[in-house]
Amino acid sequence: MNYSIIVYILGWVMTFESAFMLLPCLTAFIYKEENGLIFLICAVVTAIVGRLMTIKKPANNMFYAKEGFVAVALSWIVLSIIGAVPFYASGEIPRPIDAIFEVVSGFTTTGASILSDIESMSRCMLLWRSFTHWIGGMGVLVFLLAILPMTGGQNIYLMRAESPGPSVGKLVPKMRKTAMVLYMIYTVLTLAEIIFLIVGKMPVFDAVCTAFGTAGTGGFGIKNDSISGYSSYIQIVVTIFMFLFGVNFNFYFFVLVKKFKDAFSMEEVKWYFILYIGSVVAITINITNNISNLGGNLKHAAFQTASIMTTTGFSTADFDSWPQFSRALLVVLMFIGACAGSTGGGMKVSRIILYVKYFKKEVSASLHSRSVKIIKSDDKVLEGSIIKATIGFLMAYIIVTIVSFLLVSLNNFDLETSFTAVVATLNNIGPGLSRVGPTCNFNLFSDFSKSVLIFDMLAGRLELFPILILFAPQTWRRG
Amino acid sequence: MNYSIIVYILGWVMTFESAFMLLPCLTAFIYKEENGLIFLICAVVTAIVGRLMTIKKPANNMFYAKEGFVAVALSWIVLSIIGAVPFYASGEIPRPIDAIFEVVSGFTTTGASILSDIESMSRCMLLWRSFTHWIGGMGVLVFLLAILPMTGGQNIYLMRAESPGPSVGKLVPKMRKTAMVLYMIYTVLTLAEIIFLIVGKMPVFDAVCTAFGTAGTGGFGIKNDSISGYSSYIQIVVTIFMFLFGVNFNFYFFVLVKKFKDAFSMEEVKWYFILYIGSVVAITINITNNISNLGGNLKHAAFQTASIMTTTGFSTADFDSWPQFSRALLVVLMFIGACAGSTGGGMKVSRIILYVKYFKKEVSASLHSRSVKIIKSDDKVLEGSIIKATIGFLMAYIIVTIVSFLLVSLNNFDLETSFTAVVATLNNIGPGLSRVGPTCNFNLFSDFSKSVLIFDMLAGRLELFPILILFAPQTWRRG
Repeated sequence: MNYSIIVYILGWVMTFESAFMLLPCLTAFIYKEENGLIFLICAVVTAIVGRLMTIKKPANNMFYAKEGFVAVALSWIVLSIIGAVPFYASGEIPRPIDAIFEVVSGFTTTGASILSDIESMSRCMLLWRSFTHWIGGMGVLVFLLAILPMTGGQNIYLMRAESPGPSVGKLVPKMRKTAMVLYMIYTVLTLAEIIFLIVGKMPVFDAVCTAFGTAGTGGFGIKNDSISGYSSYIQIVVTIFMFLFGVNFNFYFFVLVKKFKDAFSMEEVKWYFILYIGSVVAITINITNNISNLGGNLKHAAFQTASIMTTTGFSTADFDSWPQFSRALLVVLMFIGACAGSTGGGMKVSRIILYVKYFKKEVSASLHSRSVKIIKSDDKVLEGSIIKATIGFLMAYIIVTIVSFLLVSLNNFDLETSFTAVVATLNNIGPGLSRVGPTCNFNLFSDFSKSVLIFDMLAGRLELFPILILFAPQTWRRG
Repeated sequence: MNYSIIVYILGWVMTFESAFMLLPCLTAFIYKEENGLIFLICAVVTAIVGRLMTIKKPANNMFYAKEGFVAVALSWIVLSIIGAVPFYASGEIPRPIDAIFEVVSGFTTTGASILSDIESMSRCMLLWRSFTHWIGGMGVLVFLLAILPMTGGQNIYLMRAESPGPSVGKLVPKMRKTAMVLYMIYTVLTLAEIIFLIVGKMPVFDAVCTAFGTAGTGGFGIKNDSISGYSSYIQIVVTIFMFLFGVNFNFYFFVLVKKFKDAFSMEEVKWYFILYIGSVVAITINITNNISNLGGNLKHAAFQTASIMTTTGFSTADFDSWPQFSRALLVVLMFIGACAGSTGGGMKVSRIILYVKYFKKEVSASLHSRSVKIIKSDDKVLEGSIIKATIGFLMAYIIVTIVSFLLVSLNNFDLETSFTAVVATLNNIGPGLSRVGPTCNFNLFSDFSKSVLIFDMLAGRLELFPILILFAPQTWRRG
């Protein structure tokens, strides 16, 4: 293990985090809030420590998959611990575990909260809370790659460990440029949403926070009733942008470079669209008793389906009180999630496509024992190693879900609460059903359960392996 | 598709079923019940039709995987329809869908019932109900293979399609002899249980029915309170035999031929044992508030864990009212199930072992991208085709679970009821939780939901592929 390069990367992550903290500082300055001082102190201390860690360039620049995983996992842990300090130090979240829960929920773009009265928070804290979604959405290491000229050429391992989806495609030959293109698309889309929201007469502060929450597919709101208090126009804008941030960013890249044929033939985007429309129609029919409510129900169904599928977690309606079929469908969509290469969580549509193809292949293999079939994606034959890793992911995913479910059920809440709490955190969605439904919060859990859910949020955001590998003895073995 | 051989096999299945119906006839004769006549008529008609179908030996004796699957799937459907006739014709179960539900639940050894007052049934019906468990437990086609001298040598396909587990090992070189050995072990164990139960002063009729229910890991009782009214001795005997019928029968074969080393080094049996003991201990601790109840709780935990893991479904306690951790653990055990090559259902311990191994392999592959690792089972390297089929099974299993769950949730019962109803039928367990808990029955569902659950029971017993293949267009394509 190349420890020196990991320390070096952690130093840079801290440096960037201190820079990110200047935004809440600025907010506090504008709104004349004293808590801004806490962010300033935090930023300065973090910056100093971070710089100290990056003064000495590591002699050995090479790192491989193992270092990539460990660096990413530790980065996210460090990021979360530092990010929790302002909440705790200001006393706005009095207990350390709660502060960490909240900030991990932010960075992992989960959006599950332990707060019952969000509106009583100061504005700089609210902004930091929403900003963590934006930072975590596209990834900190990806940001680092975009900004920092790192030599060694093995940066792909960092990118691979942090980016969602079964495989990472370089958009352009250079890793650094790929990261920059991604961040550019991300920023432009976020700005577009802010403008659309302000046009709809949303206050600027609200618009910025809401756009951060949408862009990272996070779901922290700044109102106790999430988005339901805003106008229909605003709700529709948020619906559209939630959907857009759940699309594989390669799609936008193809559009940008005018490769329209490549863009519109993307299998994952096609199925993401079909699944979304199909679910909206099914839920609208299921929740509509009276034809006169059809329009409003369609709007709620479109909003909630986008919110759950992209794993954002905003709400305009209490979907926990919807008929059981709609609730069941939402739970299934929680697992599926958004596209790979988007900021959304869940298992990702592309993995589901691969599983279904595998299933079809095995059905026909059982009929014709000698036929060898290959699995294609976007008309390219998938490599065996990608198929295996994707299946390994499924196993890991099931195992983490089951173990977490059993541990959380020790809290003795009904199984629906325990199960959907795990599903909602592991898939970085936010609200679950029953006692963790959209009108509730996660404060009811014991510290032990909160720790399990914090683990699930991190494991879910980093797609399991980087976090699981921290516990594998062979990671720390010499050699 | 070789249709003539399928007709021939179906004919033999019907012939055997008519022979099996003589047992309830005899019961009716002993207890002087009029309904025995219905069984007699049914048996005679079935025998005549069956014989007509077997008069002409098929010219072409060859059949392959496809014919094997189709023959087994159709056999089970025919078996169920004919088996339901006595229930319906006697008026003891007035609605055809309910009669089919009950008998499919019997043959597939599920044990889910639509009856609320079991004790009001006539004895011949109760015996037939329990006997279907015994017939379905080891498999009808396996029985056919044991009795019938079939030429062609491709019988392995029949056996493979009907037998539980990822791979079928021939115990002895000849398929027919393997089937005979299996039925012999099965019969001897059943007789042993009957004797042990009679020694415990259980009435002979009760002992026979209970032993049939245990042997097939079915779970139909003849009392409204299942096994909880019987003495502790009887409950302990049933606990032990449930566990024994969940063991891979290869274990008994090895013991029989004195290959003790082979028997006790069976990985699956070892893990089955560890999982069972671990779960019993965890549940006992979880349900015990007062140390004075420890003995009784241990007995209940041992009974219920064996009942759920082997997918029998008998009950001595209302586990639906246990603390949430125990309930959650039981749901997880429902999925795992018993050993392959036993009469138990579920996914089978050997598959779970393979999935965990796959997961471990992929974790280490992600660290060392070039290492090629193999998966071993009982120190033998597993073939790629078995691994693939086992993973294909998982995909199929997840897809069937999700689709069934969504369809049943249209009934608008709480998600726990809908989900555990699907899990309990697909894994051939019987009772689920909440409204389908051990003190309830499945009559609350709509006819549509019942049809879905009937499908799940059949799909679960035949391990999905034979039933799914009936819906694949390529099965029916010429060529």
